[in-house]
Amino acid sequence: MTTFSATDIHTHIVPASFPAYAGRHANVRWPQMAPGPTCRHCNVMIAGKVFRTVTDECWSLDRRLEAMTKSRVARQVLSPMPELLSYWLEPEDAQTLGRHVNDTIATMVDDGAGRFAGLGMVPMQDPERAARELERLMAMGKFRGVEIGTNVNGVSIGDLRFEPFFQAAEETGAAVFVHALHPAGTDRLIGPPAMPALVAFPCETAVCIASLMVGGTLARHPKLRIAFSHGGGVFALVLPRLMHGWNSMKELKEKVQSPAEQARKLYYDTLVYDPKTLAFLIERFGVTQLCLGTDHPFTIQETDPVGAVDALRLAPKEHELLLSTNAARFLGEAA
Amino acid sequence: MTTFSATDIHTHIVPASFPAYAGRHANVRWPQMAPGPTCRHCNVMIAGKVFRTVTDECWSLDRRLEAMTKSRVARQVLSPMPELLSYWLEPEDAQTLGRHVNDTIATMVDDGAGRFAGLGMVPMQDPERAARELERLMAMGKFRGVEIGTNVNGVSIGDLRFEPFFQAAEETGAAVFVHALHPAGTDRLIGPPAMPALVAFPCETAVCIASLMVGGTLARHPKLRIAFSHGGGVFALVLPRLMHGWNSMKELKEKVQSPAEQARKLYYDTLVYDPKTLAFLIERFGVTQLCLGTDHPFTIQETDPVGAVDALRLAPKEHELLLSTNAARFLGEAA
Repeated sequence: MTTFSATDIHTHIVPASFPAYAGRHANVRWPQMAPGPTCRHCNVMIAGKVFRTVTDECWSLDRRLEAMTKSRVARQVLSPMPELLSYWLEPEDAQTLGRHVNDTIATMVDDGAGRFAGLGMVPMQDPERAARELERLMAMGKFRGVEIGTNVNGVSIGDLRFEPFFQAAEETGAAVFVHALHPAGTDRLIGPPAMPALVAFPCETAVCIASLMVGGTLARHPKLRIAFSHGGGVFALVLPRLMHGWNSMKELKEKVQSPAEQARKLYYDTLVYDPKTLAFLIERFGVTQLCLGTDHPFTIQETDPVGAVDALRLAPKEHELLLSTNAARFLGEAA
Repeated sequence: MTTFSATDIHTHIVPASFPAYAGRHANVRWPQMAPGPTCRHCNVMIAGKVFRTVTDECWSLDRRLEAMTKSRVARQVLSPMPELLSYWLEPEDAQTLGRHVNDTIATMVDDGAGRFAGLGMVPMQDPERAARELERLMAMGKFRGVEIGTNVNGVSIGDLRFEPFFQAAEETGAAVFVHALHPAGTDRLIGPPAMPALVAFPCETAVCIASLMVGGTLARHPKLRIAFSHGGGVFALVLPRLMHGWNSMKELKEKVQSPAEQARKLYYDTLVYDPKTLAFLIERFGVTQLCLGTDHPFTIQETDPVGAVDALRLAPKEHELLLSTNAARFLGEAA
């Protein structure tokens, strides 16, 4: 029995296997698992190439629980490895794949004795289908909500075409965890293949948040509970410049709610790898809006998320907000 | 006689007029001035459209000096309106246009009784030509250096092809002011036409800094003095994630100097519109690396840059660093 209280809202899963593709399209980027470099690793193959080598922590509850004991995390919120979101597949294929991933998550939640909560996936490339799939998912009673990408094949999720999804999310009370995906401008990044994830992900997330604010999605859905990966990316530094524009430009001020006020209603994970940065985010967004996040079990993960919060030396109540209370509110579990 | 000491490193000029295009290419995006909405405004026309309506502060020394008295700025560093950099023209056309802009800046510096310093422009789309033009510019004795964009027609300035330019900048002692230009991913931004400048500019600058660091430009040119617009954009928030990658990935750590250490050798302007953000940048980059910047005379300008520094209540020596001493070091004027 653990005595930890922390809830980690940013962890990913990969199913141990995928069914063979049984759809009707050619050249489908359908994932498959292949043996990895050790018995505890697999290669996720997409379009015939190794997309990523992952550990068995991706699908093994026992291995996850070991890691959670080490990192003092009581509960993980499970969401798909973002590349599995598969917005680039035909909608019916993405739905089939999504149901396999969602079933995997539901089973892990069922088998996890309360140590896991689930965020599923829906085929956002067909917003009406995504809305219906979300309703189906939430009606199962096993999910807190879904993970979605910051964009769908290059179209910002702030685009009006995604209204059916956000309407369904608000109506079903689904928590929406927005994860950076396929960022723009990666051809301007020089360096190893990790550079887009290191540098362009945080920018992509900030662009997404700004578009959701200025495009009106957040204002149209005031009850939506929505969280952003990696501390909202770099949005905390975009905000004062956006506010300067908002304060000085009629076309923004008359049509858009104050971005600074909107920012304090969103949730963000704590995955910023630096206590001073985390303190800056708390000051900017509010101590009620940050939830523990780690990117477990990928190589980029934060291995001591509770230590990162401890380092802030917050008052006990605020400490508990970051460790678990905010997450419970985001997930719709609060009283 | 002013008693102010502040040097503003981020101000732009537009010449009062441009010569007619006399080159040999068709459909050239050559700028022209046209009458504006009042006698104190002009429209900068590019490709037959109003690119921007600008005030006579862009070219009138008297009008600039009035504004400087109001904003308590002793000296402005003049650089071209970024769209004039014209990397999309044929190199010989860009060189011709650049010489007109540079001559305008040189005359303003000459006529300004010590109240102005100049940063010119060079045709970066032809790096060898840019290097020779920079040598010519610096030999004139009227310029402290040049302004360049974060990318040249979508190619990061961290790309190896720009080595001749950076080598010439290091050898001639030219200060290099890097300004966000034509950012990637603007199609993901929802909102009015100002959104790219408000949201994508700071991301573009961060991507540029990361590429200069990881691509090795800064390591290859340790004497280069280089400054970044808008407080380095969002780089201060990208840095901890980049450092996490650097600390955990051999391919980065073995080949690249610590990004956090590199960051403390670069210069940044103070144009972040928020005292807490400015304090965060000072903590991250060092009090010796921030220089006053305003974007004068454009509508997005910071009108009280000295007040923004005053608000930090720094010790007198640090206050003076931000107001003028750091700028003098960046410009190569320090003893």
